[in-house]
Amino acid sequence: MPDTRELTYDPADLWELTLDDLEALEVGAGILGTGGGGNPYQGKLLTREAMKAGHKMTILSTDKIADDALCMSIGGIGAPVVGTERIREGREGLRCLQGMEELTGRKMDAIVCEEIGGANSMNPLVTAALGGLPVLDCDGMGRAFPEMQMTTFSIYGHSSTPSVMCDLHGNRVVFQHAVTEVFHERMARACVVAQGGAAMLATAPMPASFVRQNAIPQSYTKAIRLGRAVLDARRNGDDPVATVCALEGGRHVFTGKITDLKRHLRGGFAVGDLELGGFDGFQGQTASIAIQNEFLIFRREGEVEVTVPDLIIVLDVDTGYPITTEMLRYGQRIAVLAVPCHDLLRSARALDVVGPAAFGYPEIPFAPLAPLGQAA
Amino acid sequence: MPDTRELTYDPADLWELTLDDLEALEVGAGILGTGGGGNPYQGKLLTREAMKAGHKMTILSTDKIADDALCMSIGGIGAPVVGTERIREGREGLRCLQGMEELTGRKMDAIVCEEIGGANSMNPLVTAALGGLPVLDCDGMGRAFPEMQMTTFSIYGHSSTPSVMCDLHGNRVVFQHAVTEVFHERMARACVVAQGGAAMLATAPMPASFVRQNAIPQSYTKAIRLGRAVLDARRNGDDPVATVCALEGGRHVFTGKITDLKRHLRGGFAVGDLELGGFDGFQGQTASIAIQNEFLIFRREGEVEVTVPDLIIVLDVDTGYPITTEMLRYGQRIAVLAVPCHDLLRSARALDVVGPAAFGYPEIPFAPLAPLGQAA
Repeated sequence: MPDTRELTYDPADLWELTLDDLEALEVGAGILGTGGGGNPYQGKLLTREAMKAGHKMTILSTDKIADDALCMSIGGIGAPVVGTERIREGREGLRCLQGMEELTGRKMDAIVCEEIGGANSMNPLVTAALGGLPVLDCDGMGRAFPEMQMTTFSIYGHSSTPSVMCDLHGNRVVFQHAVTEVFHERMARACVVAQGGAAMLATAPMPASFVRQNAIPQSYTKAIRLGRAVLDARRNGDDPVATVCALEGGRHVFTGKITDLKRHLRGGFAVGDLELGGFDGFQGQTASIAIQNEFLIFRREGEVEVTVPDLIIVLDVDTGYPITTEMLRYGQRIAVLAVPCHDLLRSARALDVVGPAAFGYPEIPFAPLAPLGQAA
Repeated sequence: MPDTRELTYDPADLWELTLDDLEALEVGAGILGTGGGGNPYQGKLLTREAMKAGHKMTILSTDKIADDALCMSIGGIGAPVVGTERIREGREGLRCLQGMEELTGRKMDAIVCEEIGGANSMNPLVTAALGGLPVLDCDGMGRAFPEMQMTTFSIYGHSSTPSVMCDLHGNRVVFQHAVTEVFHERMARACVVAQGGAAMLATAPMPASFVRQNAIPQSYTKAIRLGRAVLDARRNGDDPVATVCALEGGRHVFTGKITDLKRHLRGGFAVGDLELGGFDGFQGQTASIAIQNEFLIFRREGEVEVTVPDLIIVLDVDTGYPITTEMLRYGQRIAVLAVPCHDLLRSARALDVVGPAAFGYPEIPFAPLAPLGQAA
């Protein structure tokens, strides 16, 4: 279709990312991924290739775009473990963008990140760069979650259909109408399993005014700053765990060795459990973490201590690198951090969708983690 | 959209079905369903309701429509056993038709039956009646098959995407492009499981010239004639088994009691095995039938005797009623008939898609059943 749109933002407001920013984003998004969202290393490789091929990756503040600008959110869908074994073709997201523009008969103005955690921080950058669009500095989760209805967009009233899903083979599916957000998730999830376990999915466009009000703000700014701080700490011999806690208002809840690991694919998800035996300040203690793509529930001596939607972050105790659920191995030495989630995820409306009960733990109430320095 | 189409056929050529025709079709389609295609009794109830509400059901010969008329094939997708427990809402097919007309921006001229066997003989009648269109006197299988790529349309080169799938909840999915027919089947099948196990699916429209050349001809005429003959035989105290064999060029291969039955749902299909102990002329013999929604392989004393795509038909030995796979019960007394399939299903191209190997029996060659009175 002819590109007749007027620019809905001032190009002078665009922040162009560098290769160095991508390195920092890899680390920051990995940490915010709370174990999921896809492996950010592989996401970075695709992003770097696109950047090297001359495609600009630009970030735009949600304050700097017209209210009625059309924003399309996009993310990878599938089990992270598939992403590590099957490399994407690279233009799945662009095909989603083209498909959405054909479907709606309208040009999109900006791309929105579904999920800042993991590879899904990188996927919108590739799509936007290939499509010549900016990515807004925000996201729909402020972390990673395993299911599509778990965005602040869906939680606060956006209907994510019609959506467009494209895989590496060239299949294109349009979820024209779903009666609920959960039905959309179920149908897309079943379909992605049939496609081999990984695809890109773009949801129905939103006006920028809606995004501004309902997205987790400044996600790229924060993730890149976090990643850079950890890289600096590593370089300077400082403690990356303390660095993350200080920046994110979190706390260091455990250090231990993985003594048991159950993990398998079920219905397109990586689900399982992780057992830990403590050392350093946690000698003699045991802990466990329940997994559904992300780290969901942290228990110490069998007692629940941290729950989703607060962030449970696992770092390699020696290198400070974030460890995604598919990279977990028996015997790994890890630090476990807990970080309070954004207030948009703590409303009653949000907890219905992303609280422990939504993940099959109706007996566990959400006890919000207090910020650093305050009692829980 | 405004209905600006010109009529592509002469209304005088339409054959309007009666309630009596539906009764005969139920029996005939049940027999041709070879155990699958959905329970025709429930299909008939929906058809009868629509007819009683004043909707005309008309059949049109494929010779009596313009070459370039747009024909949309439609059928139910899902496991038959779900269809017996969850009644359809009734307008799923109409929503598919409306969805296809929106998608293509063109009005359809006629409806085509994907599968004459089972309830899928009835589904196109309901859709066409509600949409004010005729159903062509043909189908894509001449029987029932468990998967969508197993139509003569797909086999002989029609790409079935873009397709539209609608469920009773109101979900609508468009398979915009599938790289292969099998991918289309896999994605739609996965999706229908997420929708609860049953939906209607309309495939990309075909010109009437293509349908005329590649469809199994006169399916409704034949199914209604077959059903009427069986009903007459029953009424007159004649042998329904002999009646079917005589009309369809088949043979009576076994009479026995079901001595064992394994059947379960796997990936949206009813799969299993049936063991038989013979009586009457088959006293002392054993036989078995392998099932995947339909009856696939008939073995006598462990030796393969009849295979898909030839028709393996199971009738109640006392009443002559066809028995679908989900109605099978331990202890039932059944007659097994074998009927040669249409030549369009016997080409090398067709056997790649509907021969024993396509169902997971690469070691079983297709040995075409000879017509009645000839040696095998």
